[in-house]
Amino acid sequence: MNCEVVAVGTELLLGQIVDTNSSWIGEQLALAGIDSHHQTKVGDNLDRMVSVLGQALDRSDAVIVCGGLGPTPDDITREAIAAVMGVELVRDERIIAKIEAMFGGRGRTMSENNKRQADVPAGARVNPAMPGTAAGLICPLSRSHQGGAYEGGAYEGGAYEGGAYEGGAYEGGAHEGKVIYAVPGVPWEMRQMVLEGVLPDLAERAGISAVIRSRMLRTWGQSESGLAEQLDEEIRRLDETGTATIAFLASGLEGLKVRITAKAGSEAEAVSILDAEESRLRDLVGDIVFGTDDDTMESVVLDLLRDRGLTLALAESLTGGLISSRLVNHTGCSEVFRGGIVAYHRDLKQSLLHAGAVRSVSEEMVVEMAQGACRVLAADVGLAVSGVAGPEPHEGVEPGVVCIGLHIAGADTTDETNGHSEATTIKLPFDRDRIRQFTCIMALNMLRTRLLDR
Amino acid sequence: MNCEVVAVGTELLLGQIVDTNSSWIGEQLALAGIDSHHQTKVGDNLDRMVSVLGQALDRSDAVIVCGGLGPTPDDITREAIAAVMGVELVRDERIIAKIEAMFGGRGRTMSENNKRQADVPAGARVNPAMPGTAAGLICPLSRSHQGGAYEGGAYEGGAYEGGAYEGGAYEGGAHEGKVIYAVPGVPWEMRQMVLEGVLPDLAERAGISAVIRSRMLRTWGQSESGLAEQLDEEIRRLDETGTATIAFLASGLEGLKVRITAKAGSEAEAVSILDAEESRLRDLVGDIVFGTDDDTMESVVLDLLRDRGLTLALAESLTGGLISSRLVNHTGCSEVFRGGIVAYHRDLKQSLLHAGAVRSVSEEMVVEMAQGACRVLAADVGLAVSGVAGPEPHEGVEPGVVCIGLHIAGADTTDETNGHSEATTIKLPFDRDRIRQFTCIMALNMLRTRLLDR
Repeated sequence: MNCEVVAVGTELLLGQIVDTNSSWIGEQLALAGIDSHHQTKVGDNLDRMVSVLGQALDRSDAVIVCGGLGPTPDDITREAIAAVMGVELVRDERIIAKIEAMFGGRGRTMSENNKRQADVPAGARVNPAMPGTAAGLICPLSRSHQGGAYEGGAYEGGAYEGGAYEGGAYEGGAHEGKVIYAVPGVPWEMRQMVLEGVLPDLAERAGISAVIRSRMLRTWGQSESGLAEQLDEEIRRLDETGTATIAFLASGLEGLKVRITAKAGSEAEAVSILDAEESRLRDLVGDIVFGTDDDTMESVVLDLLRDRGLTLALAESLTGGLISSRLVNHTGCSEVFRGGIVAYHRDLKQSLLHAGAVRSVSEEMVVEMAQGACRVLAADVGLAVSGVAGPEPHEGVEPGVVCIGLHIAGADTTDETNGHSEATTIKLPFDRDRIRQFTCIMALNMLRTRLLDR
Repeated sequence: MNCEVVAVGTELLLGQIVDTNSSWIGEQLALAGIDSHHQTKVGDNLDRMVSVLGQALDRSDAVIVCGGLGPTPDDITREAIAAVMGVELVRDERIIAKIEAMFGGRGRTMSENNKRQADVPAGARVNPAMPGTAAGLICPLSRSHQGGAYEGGAYEGGAYEGGAYEGGAYEGGAHEGKVIYAVPGVPWEMRQMVLEGVLPDLAERAGISAVIRSRMLRTWGQSESGLAEQLDEEIRRLDETGTATIAFLASGLEGLKVRITAKAGSEAEAVSILDAEESRLRDLVGDIVFGTDDDTMESVVLDLLRDRGLTLALAESLTGGLISSRLVNHTGCSEVFRGGIVAYHRDLKQSLLHAGAVRSVSEEMVVEMAQGACRVLAADVGLAVSGVAGPEPHEGVEPGVVCIGLHIAGADTTDETNGHSEATTIKLPFDRDRIRQFTCIMALNMLRTRLLDR
């Protein structure tokens, strides 16, 4: 069984929107064990859509068409599928009722245009999920679909200028048993329909009764080749036993993701395989795993602080508020995050944080900044960064040199020698923006590992 | 003349990488006046690549293939093009010399694999731009290319397992006069090659002697329909005169872009049309134009501050360092940006900024915060935000309510009544992240318009 993806929309071809939908669908198909060899973008043009759909059906068992299900005249995916199937569009009153109810719920009236969204090719089913006003379609190609019913120009919606497509170019019968799924281009609507309506139908057609589940382990601090080496034996063991597979996915400056995929007879069995494999991998690679699935470095740090009843304050120079802004993006961060000082100018390190007369980018400075943040912002933990983003050196320090400092107050918060202080220096070979991004995640990771020790 | 795009790479189909290259190329083709009706993604598989390239040539005059020019065995774009052209690959010693020089320059030795990057289909030219080790190709289809020279299995690079493709499926002659351009998948290499090698060649083939140039006006504070209304008459005037065209491009929370495109006989003439049209549009819509092309709201604000010899300090609550982190992303911001205070907890507004006992989210509070920022951080201008990101109300204030305050110190910086203070309140119907993003740009825009007045 293989399935390809066709994304519809002239704005995609013009580069006004990047087609992330196809990428997401491609990932889901791969996870579901369904091959996908082609993805095509085509404009809102009936001839070309019909031709592209025909070609896709020639070489694949199933096609997911994404976009062109809206109410406006340039939304012609329904017409194109009907042409390929060689059938008429039939207006489905149940869909109209659903759309009317949605508009009513928001105190608005449905426009006449929206009725087009209830047009369904004869013989097609509606996707069970319908989160918006667009109805998703499941359109099987049967023996009786002989193509040719569409005779160019029958569609008078305005956007299509007719004529070039004369029906008959597409010869229906060869695609018997194949299927076209239509989903909207709005990402959240598309996703729900693919997960709830398309993938289960595809799995049934492919005779896949197994449950396939995956889990992402998020790691930071190890290269892909290093990680591959650490896991080499385990990967070979899995190759032999076939219980699960492991894949590495780069995630830019945010580290590497390790995806575990398990195939099993039931949901519970799949989850238990994932649990066992996760714990095996964690034993092998240790603390570089900072979280799973939707965890981020900052959400993990906030959780660790909360668990330990500690509050956090920041003193940022180089990163200029970036660490802080990532933390506050999480609901509930106010329990543990006190605030921060962006001491971009050197004199502010002294006047606001009372950091002494040491070199601006030095380990002494970031320790004093971290201690100052604890004191001035009344927090248990202080995290501080200073560095040179470049492009020019600063006070004799080369671009890319970054110092990170950490202070965890002891029982007697008035006495800094009573707490724990540490600092580290690194040299990053990146440009300005990436130096800051990298520093941000590295500082949070330093805090994370220290909190794990407590 | 129309040209389509084929992006090569199994990782694109699996959704591990989003194909932004095709979108960028699509935009460039549109700007150059060349139609593009299809974009296709295909995996690193010789049969499928040959078949997709053949289909593309059937329906388009030119094809840009992106990716698969690297040194590893799964990089087989060169082989696929040779198969479509029906010719052999010829190793080009001049390319080897270039690659060797690049490696030598970095103190490394070229690997044997890299020699594959010097293989060129017989009859093809090398793209004049070669910023990396991949050579771009310009491959004209001529009468003598009869297809079929490639007989499946001749390629023994390891990734291709041969057999299925038996040559001859593709019949060369019909594509006479058409052309395939191969560019690498690395974005910066691809962009340079498309701009310097592909687009000029396409324009020459299309007989386009005109120079097409465009300029983006960046606006903030007006809806697309509002802007369309303001510019309605001008758009109609341009339709009649044909001197330039105008397009609106949404840019999310960062406002709307208005793109002016001019076609002229020379570079100078095109630029003069753009200049004239820009000034006409600015007259029509006023201060909502905050910059052009690569300008951002923060780069514009930093420039305005620098021009006026003013320094800036921030006091952020809701945005938690986001405004600050955007500012420091610009080289040279240290001239005007002093730093900021992230007073996430209410008590810090008082202890750090000496903002009084007023409601945490109120206009009084943000004015006091802005004044406090000026004083504590020793800056001429203070910008402050406070608000409720949600999802829950805070101190009786609904999620989405945001206050922005601004203070510009007067001649006597010790006396706040001597300066200018103002504040505004808005209610945003967004989620947590978008409330913060929107607040950020709105606060910067408030500062921008006030600085324009001075």
